[in-house]
Amino acid sequence: MRPLAIIVLLSVCVSVSAQTTDENTIKLIFDAALSKGESYQMLEHLTGRIGPRLSGSPGAAAAVEWSRHVMQEYEFDSVWLQPVMVPHWVRGQKEEGRIVNSKKMGTVPVNICALGGSIGTGPSGVAAQIVEVKTFEELKQIGSGIKGKIVFFNRPMDPTKINTFNAYAGAVNQRGAGASEAARYGAVAVVVRSMGSNIEDYPHTGGMQYAPNIPQIPAVAISTKHAELLSKLLKDDPSLQFYIETHCEMLDDAPSFNVIGEIKGGEYANEIIVVSGHLDSWDLAQGAHDDGAGCVQAIEALRLFKVLGYKPKRTIRAVMYMNEENGLRGGRAYADLAEKNKEKHIAAIESDRGGFTPRGFSMTASDSEKERIRSWKPLLEPYGLSDFGQEGGGADIGPLARMNVALIGFLPDSQRYFDYHHTPQDNFDKVNKRELEMGAASMAGLMYLLDKYGLK
Amino acid sequence: MRPLAIIVLLSVCVSVSAQTTDENTIKLIFDAALSKGESYQMLEHLTGRIGPRLSGSPGAAAAVEWSRHVMQEYEFDSVWLQPVMVPHWVRGQKEEGRIVNSKKMGTVPVNICALGGSIGTGPSGVAAQIVEVKTFEELKQIGSGIKGKIVFFNRPMDPTKINTFNAYAGAVNQRGAGASEAARYGAVAVVVRSMGSNIEDYPHTGGMQYAPNIPQIPAVAISTKHAELLSKLLKDDPSLQFYIETHCEMLDDAPSFNVIGEIKGGEYANEIIVVSGHLDSWDLAQGAHDDGAGCVQAIEALRLFKVLGYKPKRTIRAVMYMNEENGLRGGRAYADLAEKNKEKHIAAIESDRGGFTPRGFSMTASDSEKERIRSWKPLLEPYGLSDFGQEGGGADIGPLARMNVALIGFLPDSQRYFDYHHTPQDNFDKVNKRELEMGAASMAGLMYLLDKYGLK
Repeated sequence: MRPLAIIVLLSVCVSVSAQTTDENTIKLIFDAALSKGESYQMLEHLTGRIGPRLSGSPGAAAAVEWSRHVMQEYEFDSVWLQPVMVPHWVRGQKEEGRIVNSKKMGTVPVNICALGGSIGTGPSGVAAQIVEVKTFEELKQIGSGIKGKIVFFNRPMDPTKINTFNAYAGAVNQRGAGASEAARYGAVAVVVRSMGSNIEDYPHTGGMQYAPNIPQIPAVAISTKHAELLSKLLKDDPSLQFYIETHCEMLDDAPSFNVIGEIKGGEYANEIIVVSGHLDSWDLAQGAHDDGAGCVQAIEALRLFKVLGYKPKRTIRAVMYMNEENGLRGGRAYADLAEKNKEKHIAAIESDRGGFTPRGFSMTASDSEKERIRSWKPLLEPYGLSDFGQEGGGADIGPLARMNVALIGFLPDSQRYFDYHHTPQDNFDKVNKRELEMGAASMAGLMYLLDKYGLK
Repeated sequence: MRPLAIIVLLSVCVSVSAQTTDENTIKLIFDAALSKGESYQMLEHLTGRIGPRLSGSPGAAAAVEWSRHVMQEYEFDSVWLQPVMVPHWVRGQKEEGRIVNSKKMGTVPVNICALGGSIGTGPSGVAAQIVEVKTFEELKQIGSGIKGKIVFFNRPMDPTKINTFNAYAGAVNQRGAGASEAARYGAVAVVVRSMGSNIEDYPHTGGMQYAPNIPQIPAVAISTKHAELLSKLLKDDPSLQFYIETHCEMLDDAPSFNVIGEIKGGEYANEIIVVSGHLDSWDLAQGAHDDGAGCVQAIEALRLFKVLGYKPKRTIRAVMYMNEENGLRGGRAYADLAEKNKEKHIAAIESDRGGFTPRGFSMTASDSEKERIRSWKPLLEPYGLSDFGQEGGGADIGPLARMNVALIGFLPDSQRYFDYHHTPQDNFDKVNKRELEMGAASMAGLMYLLDKYGLK
């Protein structure tokens, strides 16, 4: 055999053997997550014992303490809190909405909830004629006809989008910017169709922002079922009146924390790989899928390394960001400090699309980094991870982009997410144990490959 | 340009244009299923108004009438019933199981249910010492020590199998054959750990068969939670007694039907493509995932062709088989009649793995047929259909194999299936609308390609 042939053969053998090792290690990770996993019991505690965790709330503070404690109990090398000031919005006790004196049905109570960040109406409420629009363009066309009225944004999520996040992206500007857009034309309040995939009884809350130098008006979400009803009644009776009463308000910023756990790398300790979720949630439910799931999966990913006795070459960190939902202060503070401390992050993974069955990973990274990650697809596909084609990372890890960190979003199946997202339904009972565990193992598997091979 | 180049270019253009047409048609199918689909409301009726549909029951008869009526209302070209005699097993009113006089907990009622096909204990019940085993091999080793005792089969589904059907396959012989295996050694009854992925409160029923010339003994399933408890108590007290009382019995075979709806092909009417599910279910719940979902998806697939005005070249048939759960009489009768009538089936698709998010199709077919179907993957992958590597079709279409029909199994995600399968939980509320609709569209999309291109 000629020397070249031997070299080629040797390199094939090495590569085959490396692949076998990788296959075996990833199988060990999934086996451990599925047979002796602890993500599900962690989530049961976080959702059942602690519950809602809106930034600034006692629940958020309890979740900080709990996650620090859990990672200390697992004996990660270091566990610490990173201080961050967060917006502190409170819903108040009472929320009421009703269609007033409709021709067909008289006065009809409807299911609404204030949007996060909105001002309240106070005890006198807001009563006015209500005008339906589907787009900001339509609003502009009506122009001064909006003055003194309540605007009803009723553009549904497009059901034909296979990825429900694309349907969400096509509708969510009504919730985020609708109040100020309507206030430009003199509206007195806005009622926004909930960002839900289906026709449901309950409203979906979520963040909204006021544009500068425009009057702030109250904003509420209405359940998709009542949005349909309201639209129908408006067809018969365009002069229909609507009443809203909310008592929400923005308090002063409150102190809070990102929670970080770390296992130090043995070879390139200064290179950091982040696996993450966000600890805060909305206030209407337990925040099980959004994003309790992501938090316990991040902790579980590090725990799996420990129980398998796998010593990473690089430093791996589980980060539980605070305040993704209404401010992103935690994600920004983390990136700021990383920059200030000249930390070298090579990659950051976030799980913030629910604890559903794994489908793949999205990426915001250089072409060569994407190519490297895609080269691992044969190792991950046996676990249902076949989609490596989407762009994107995650909201909290987004601020790391300016340091050229490869951002990676864990992609679970999206079909059920917007049934629960930001609703009173996002509770532990909606999470399937195996699906949650497979997500944790998916992130640990990718972290293993990132750690072993790096991205350069 | 040289003639050859022109030919090559032309053929590329034709192929690009065919692909564009196919892409567009498949998108139209998904759009229609997701925006104006009727599978979900069909399933709501079948599960909520009709409910459980065990072979020979009034529910099964009502489901036959309902599905005939629905397909007639949709104006399929022909709709007919195919008579078939089915086993008629009834559970009876009362089912009781308890651990008797354990040292630690005294007498403990446990959640059991009779396995389908089992004889009952009658009012006097069966009380005896209970012996735990995990395999038939273990049973053999104990041998005559089994005599007069109840055998407790307690081998769990392997949680490390990513496809839960593989875990099921590794455990289900305890349910199907356990009674006769234990009776060989003189057992008086068997208690089988439920075929469930998790630790749950409710038992899973399912079919069992008695081997010829071996005494028939009562067989029940026990919830996984109580299986764990029983196993724990047996460790402390190997002489533990168990009591079972069931009143199930096998009645005479009853008349029933497969229900078939057809749209005639315009070009090759004698070539038939089947899309199918099974109409019967177990008796403990509504049979929503197993297999109401498959039935409404099959009807929906034909309905989508009709509403899109798409005229098939070949004849397409929606078949609702009767008696998959405890006899497969419908599947056998369908194949027998097809053979007798010299019908030419080119392919049969079955959906019998639940109404979950689509992942792919399994196949039992010739290599060239598999290759043809796999060549369509780029058209189907945008809808989450990426797994075309598994062997297999479906139980009801299985008997068509002897006529060399390509058998295709619709593969939804498997993680949640064995939480509900054969339990009191398999109800409409466990089905997600979008997931169900995407399954119907997946089958219609594949049917469109099979119809347009054939398999030769």
